[in-house]
Amino acid sequence: MSRFVHVAAAQLGPIQRSDSRRDVVARLLAHLHHAHEMGCHLVVFPELALTTFFPRWYMEDPEELNAFYEREMPGPETRILFDTAARLGIGFYLGYAELAVEQGVERRYNTAILVGRDGKIVGKYRKVHLPGHDQHEPWRAFQHLEKRYFEPGDDFGVWQAFGGVMGMALCNDRRWSETYRVMGLQGAEMILLGYNTPVHNPPAPEHDDLSMFHNHLVMQAGAYQNGTWVVGVAKAGKEEGCEMIGGTSIIAPSGEIVAACSTKGDELAIARCDLDLCQSYKSTTFNFDRHRRPEAYGRITSQRGATPPQPVAA
Amino acid sequence: MSRFVHVAAAQLGPIQRSDSRRDVVARLLAHLHHAHEMGCHLVVFPELALTTFFPRWYMEDPEELNAFYEREMPGPETRILFDTAARLGIGFYLGYAELAVEQGVERRYNTAILVGRDGKIVGKYRKVHLPGHDQHEPWRAFQHLEKRYFEPGDDFGVWQAFGGVMGMALCNDRRWSETYRVMGLQGAEMILLGYNTPVHNPPAPEHDDLSMFHNHLVMQAGAYQNGTWVVGVAKAGKEEGCEMIGGTSIIAPSGEIVAACSTKGDELAIARCDLDLCQSYKSTTFNFDRHRRPEAYGRITSQRGATPPQPVAA
Repeated sequence: MSRFVHVAAAQLGPIQRSDSRRDVVARLLAHLHHAHEMGCHLVVFPELALTTFFPRWYMEDPEELNAFYEREMPGPETRILFDTAARLGIGFYLGYAELAVEQGVERRYNTAILVGRDGKIVGKYRKVHLPGHDQHEPWRAFQHLEKRYFEPGDDFGVWQAFGGVMGMALCNDRRWSETYRVMGLQGAEMILLGYNTPVHNPPAPEHDDLSMFHNHLVMQAGAYQNGTWVVGVAKAGKEEGCEMIGGTSIIAPSGEIVAACSTKGDELAIARCDLDLCQSYKSTTFNFDRHRRPEAYGRITSQRGATPPQPVAA
Repeated sequence: MSRFVHVAAAQLGPIQRSDSRRDVVARLLAHLHHAHEMGCHLVVFPELALTTFFPRWYMEDPEELNAFYEREMPGPETRILFDTAARLGIGFYLGYAELAVEQGVERRYNTAILVGRDGKIVGKYRKVHLPGHDQHEPWRAFQHLEKRYFEPGDDFGVWQAFGGVMGMALCNDRRWSETYRVMGLQGAEMILLGYNTPVHNPPAPEHDDLSMFHNHLVMQAGAYQNGTWVVGVAKAGKEEGCEMIGGTSIIAPSGEIVAACSTKGDELAIARCDLDLCQSYKSTTFNFDRHRRPEAYGRITSQRGATPPQPVAA
């Protein structure tokens, strides 16, 4: 059997602070049109794909901060994406900063939505693993204030769409094996994942030259270990003086990269993905029901931090 | 700060069924001596390092089966390993089939022990993730009856030894992200891991050409995602007509392979491993206490198999 989804991983080059929503949406629309020309069913955009990566700045003025968030989706500037998707019959995954009002309280999330080929929202995911810090740390070359500007989401769901079981994640989620496993345990066949990753990590600059290796390593392992496709999509290039990795790639359930971008700009990587390829992993080596041993995994859910043994005298 | 452990990953070529324990122990002793000449503190042997990989045969006669197990460790044929270790001041990890008598009942485990530089056993680990099957499946080119011949262990522990926090795992354990995480949550700084992996996987021959890629992928991801060294050691080559992968490697907390074997025979890969390299991962990207979200991981321990959503009409 074969169940093909034609996927475009729609990398974006940098978005500068002075770029308007209209400027950015025009680039997203160009991606939608090009992907449609290539016969694609699904376009995967990056994390925070409507603005520059604003957590790099410490902001005290709520109005300054709020300008980076969407209060509704679709909103006036983004409705054209949904209308175009419906007209072309092409769905999309889009990351953006969400400002929600819940029981009268403003809440901010780092969010992704999945939109079907009819232009309707299929599902929403709010980022679980927020990286960085929540206080201003002036010693850094740039801030990474996701823990300040967002509240975490509380679950990894899956959605039936595009003929299979689709999952969503965002950026730092991809470094955590739990992300893939929680979706794998729900039968995920394709995990969509946008990211913004600076080459330079201020607390650990000694790893900077490995940023691309780590990017691929975690996504390839997550794909193989759960027998699922992974579509990882970067916002790349030099944004407001900060270099961000590219490395957009479509990864098969084998862990192999089957399509990739090679620039740091707006670029499509395209693959004809057979969701039924998942089965030869999910039914053999990673037949969870036969081979997993949750009774030995207790620490994964019962503790957050590491608890090394007390040092003993040598 | 630096805390160096000088490690030899002591790959073994094939062990045929006709090879005696004495033959095999002589090869292990040669590895101990060569590693000592290279200034090593710790030698890591493969899984089931004292015999051929006997789960490839279906056996009904308990006596025939029991011949592959150790009833005591050290025993008459293995005591010289412990004595030599103590004399050279070099520790070792050794995988073997264990026949234990617990409350009068014979129990069989796929076991590894860690022996200190004084020749004394520091810890014992019994394989948690037993692969394969428990019934004779004559359609296979060879059997993989680990689920028949062993009972599973029930935990991943760590031990303070060699100046750090050491963990143990065996073969199929390495494919499961939970293996590394449960030890990472106990502060593991080096995970020792022997394996016997046929190139050919009868239920999924379509993956055979990827067996080495998968071998490295899972160990490299496990190292990086937990900021730990991983020492993966093969029994390799053509054993009783069955080709087994090599790929023995020492992997840094960065996920990089820093030493490797290039043959399918008895061979040492050696590295001077600084356990303090773990810290730059454990204290930043993989600072578990800051960044993990166990409240979103519930499925990992609450369910064994995958529970995909019910298909809906397209």
